[in-house]
Amino acid sequence: MQFMLRIEVSLPPDMAEDAKAALRAREHARGTELIEQRTLLRIWRIVGRIANFSVWQAPTLEALHDALTTLPMFPYMKIDVTPLIDHPMTAVAERAHGRTETHT
Amino acid sequence: MQFMLRIEVSLPPDMAEDAKAALRAREHARGTELIEQRTLLRIWRIVGRIANFSVWQAPTLEALHDALTTLPMFPYMKIDVTPLIDHPMTAVAERAHGRTETHT
Amino acid sequence: MQFMLRIEVSLPPDMAEDAKAALRAREHARGTELIEQRTLLRIWRIVGRIANFSVWQAPTLEALHDALTTLPMFPYMKIDVTPLIDHPMTAVAERAHGRTETHT
Amino acid sequence: MQFMLRIEVSLPPDMAEDAKAALRAREHARGTELIEQRTLLRIWRIVGRIANFSVWQAPTLEALHDALTTLPMFPYMKIDVTPLIDHPMTAVAERAHGRTETHT
Amino acid sequence: MQFMLRIEVSLPPDMAEDAKAALRAREHARGTELIEQRTLLRIWRIVGRIANFSVWQAPTLEALHDALTTLPMFPYMKIDVTPLIDHPMTAVAERAHGRTETHT
Amino acid sequence: MQFMLRIEVSLPPDMAEDAKAALRAREHARGTELIEQRTLLRIWRIVGRIANFSVWQAPTLEALHDALTTLPMFPYMKIDVTPLIDHPMTAVAERAHGRTETHT
Amino acid sequence: MQFMLRIEVSLPPDMAEDAKAALRAREHARGTELIEQRTLLRIWRIVGRIANFSVWQAPTLEALHDALTTLPMFPYMKIDVTPLIDHPMTAVAERAHGRTETHT
Amino acid sequence: MQFMLRIEVSLPPDMAEDAKAALRAREHARGTELIEQRTLLRIWRIVGRIANFSVWQAPTLEALHDALTTLPMFPYMKIDVTPLIDHPMTAVAERAHGRTETHT
Amino acid sequence: MQFMLRIEVSLPPDMAEDAKAALRAREHARGTELIEQRTLLRIWRIVGRIANFSVWQAPTLEALHDALTTLPMFPYMKIDVTPLIDHPMTAVAERAHGRTETHT
Amino acid sequence: MQFMLRIEVSLPPDMAEDAKAALRAREHARGTELIEQRTLLRIWRIVGRIANFSVWQAPTLEALHDALTTLPMFPYMKIDVTPLIDHPMTAVAERAHGRTETHT
Repeated sequence: MQFMLRIEVSLPPDMAEDAKAALRAREHARGTELIEQRTLLRIWRIVGRIANFSVWQAPTLEALHDALTTLPMFPYMKIDVTPLIDHPMTAVAERAHGRTETHT
Repeated sequence: MQFMLRIEVSLPPDMAEDAKAALRAREHARGTELIEQRTLLRIWRIVGRIANFSVWQAPTLEALHDALTTLPMFPYMKIDVTPLIDHPMTAVAERAHGRTETHT
Repeated sequence: MQFMLRIEVSLPPDMAEDAKAALRAREHARGTELIEQRTLLRIWRIVGRIANFSVWQAPTLEALHDALTTLPMFPYMKIDVTPLIDHPMTAVAERAHGRTETHT
Repeated sequence: MQFMLRIEVSLPPDMAEDAKAALRAREHARGTELIEQRTLLRIWRIVGRIANFSVWQAPTLEALHDALTTLPMFPYMKIDVTPLIDHPMTAVAERAHGRTETHT
Repeated sequence: MQFMLRIEVSLPPDMAEDAKAALRAREHARGTELIEQRTLLRIWRIVGRIANFSVWQAPTLEALHDALTTLPMFPYMKIDVTPLIDHPMTAVAERAHGRTETHT
Repeated sequence: MQFMLRIEVSLPPDMAEDAKAALRAREHARGTELIEQRTLLRIWRIVGRIANFSVWQAPTLEALHDALTTLPMFPYMKIDVTPLIDHPMTAVAERAHGRTETHT
Repeated sequence: MQFMLRIEVSLPPDMAEDAKAALRAREHARGTELIEQRTLLRIWRIVGRIANFSVWQAPTLEALHDALTTLPMFPYMKIDVTPLIDHPMTAVAERAHGRTETHT
Repeated sequence: MQFMLRIEVSLPPDMAEDAKAALRAREHARGTELIEQRTLLRIWRIVGRIANFSVWQAPTLEALHDALTTLPMFPYMKIDVTPLIDHPMTAVAERAHGRTETHT
Repeated sequence: MQFMLRIEVSLPPDMAEDAKAALRAREHARGTELIEQRTLLRIWRIVGRIANFSVWQAPTLEALHDALTTLPMFPYMKIDVTPLIDHPMTAVAERAHGRTETHT
Repeated sequence: MQFMLRIEVSLPPDMAEDAKAALRAREHARGTELIEQRTLLRIWRIVGRIANFSVWQAPTLEALHDALTTLPMFPYMKIDVTPLIDHPMTAVAERAHGRTETHT
């Protein structure tokens, strides 16, 4: 089960630079874990913004929400969740380029 | 160079069913070609809508626009184009799950 | 897995009254089947609108989308899908009032 | 008389963690009372947000408003109230799955 | 139980003038009945628009919705319903100017 | 000359409780004077919000604006002003239920 | 009593050219009358649009609405009405440049 | 060359009263100079708001922008600029009521 | 005097292909004339849309509006006009890359 | 590869004047470098706003994003990026007025 997320991050303008750096490091570490757990599949930065599009995979809606709330930057995020299914051309794209998630 | 597109399709309500079917067949055929040319990389249908998120790849902005205008349903589409770059976690995700586009 | 849907219905103003009546009858028949299949759990009309809030249950996102597209009025609907999970008070409400879906 | 509420909660970013925890505990306690009084019937968390959809029942509009203002988090909430009535398929859903509120 | 409604009316631009006149006459007749039944209490035209603010009174949400759907222009209306309760100054205003609805 | 106002009040979240109480008392006192002067005719609280719909009457636009600026909460209000005139059904409603303003 | 109006005009795209020309001529004739009656005081076209800002003067809100509905293009207009009063600098501007309306 | 401006002013809620008064005095003084220079031609307060519509005249776009940035309240303003030209009825209005700017 | 325009073009979906082609040819011819007259300085197509950003130059607002209304596609355009002035870095950019308009 | 950017700048209202001046000086210095590197091609100030339209050129999306994040004011900017391609009339405009970027 996959979802497209659009996430905007708004850090408080008066947050100290080293607090920001520490927060980013923790975010990166937690994101890496979620990638290794096959929860976060793809992520792209939006040009000119502190924002991203990302594809998430979860067996349940609860698992998706729980994963998001473990992100250290969650309190600073505005998240839009769009449920995704295969498009008739998805299978064609997978045969050509591989599937977004890796099947084991 | 990759782009996230959100495409809404609005066929005229009074279009005949077989005209719709023919249009869909042509759209699918052209979409397949664009997939094979590595222009259209991924596509997901948005649940409950005649709409999709899709990841496109093009060497130039002109190539992207030209590809879109060859879609038989282009006159019925509202397209939002968001330029994408790698997020700091993109490389992590690629190592875990493979890159969205297939390198040759 | 449950979802809140907000559905607005816009029938063409020039649709003949008996065509509308026939469409409504088919919508009701199909809706009844989806209720019996435990896909459509709850539905409320929004006062003053041809619109509803409804709670849907599906084992997969594909099953939800497929169910929606079988609705005879689907071509006339604007559907917003919000994925739902339990709130910390959901369990309290269930103990008091029963769960929205019926467990078998 | 039932209402669909969409509630967004925005706690001040600089509220201390234990103040937040205490507020949440009081919110949960008051929510539980409202559930036991058959005022708050159903509540679902919206995935990825500090927000919920909830179904409220009240004999009067005054009773609904008064119940909302007793919520400890009320000063931090943005609440949208939509009055609900039965849809023609509500009765079908009730026969299949039971009614949202419990009749005594 | 009272509600503020904002109603925009959009008649099809190609509706014949006498069809419009007949529709308006039927709307006026039905509106008069709803006034006499104490359902429609107050109505004001919005300057420069085919739109109105109106105060409605109904013992139930169903009664309000049913009243609205009996309006001949209902298919051409966009209706926003806002549930109302007394403000702390409502009683002061009533003592000075009488209550909006007439008590019998 | 009458106007429908929709007023949202946003007190600063860090205003002390007794400062809020004092402000509310002054607002109530001034509102009472405006009611007695036949400037504020009707006021309803919007369910679930710190907001109201209210009907104001003034001989001139200047008198309306001046009355609003004397409200102690004016600096915290967002006010939308809609000029109102009689609707063809206003006279019908007045015959049935009395006119909103009291004629002397 | 003065008002700022922003009026957008949307003629049906399939209206015949001579019907448009006749409508424009009637609009101009009626507008001229309203100017001579000191109801329409000022009018400016918005660059690049079929739209205008205009200052209207009327002794009552009813007179303003009635004047607008006599415009031949009224059925094709979307009108936003903003009530105006003097700004503290209005008197300064009048002393320098004359008042917008002509006093007799 | 004339422009319609809609200006919203948002002073910080915690600005001291005498700082506000001093700012208003400086704004008034500068506004008076701009009126005398025939840059600011007309200004109206919007009822119920700290906002105005105003007509500005400048030989160049640079002159307009420079004039605006000399306003002491400029840092607290949100300004929408709409370029204006004569409407076909402008000449009619001028013959009846005089032109907005005074020709020397 | 320069302006940034964002122009969306919406041709009627049922316009015949050769009528569209003829309209485009006339639009191109007129656009070419406006370029040669130094009125239309720059134009870019927006990727994925029938829309453009364009820089226009005109000695007066009237000249700009008149130029726009001579475009054969004007009746099908939604035009947003933004007045432009030099930014402090404009002169730097001009020294490096030449000025947008050609001085004679 | 070119892009139209619309950039709004919102400096904190309580930033000290000399901090603002220093920030502006650094912004100007960095902007000058980006101009000399042919990344920032054109920039116009929007009349009445602390905002600009600007044309950027970059060989890749990454280069564009990296350039933007080097701007000292980037944390205070809201940036909208629109990918641009040649319009059929672009070549005509270039022959008449030169191309926006300077070819070497």
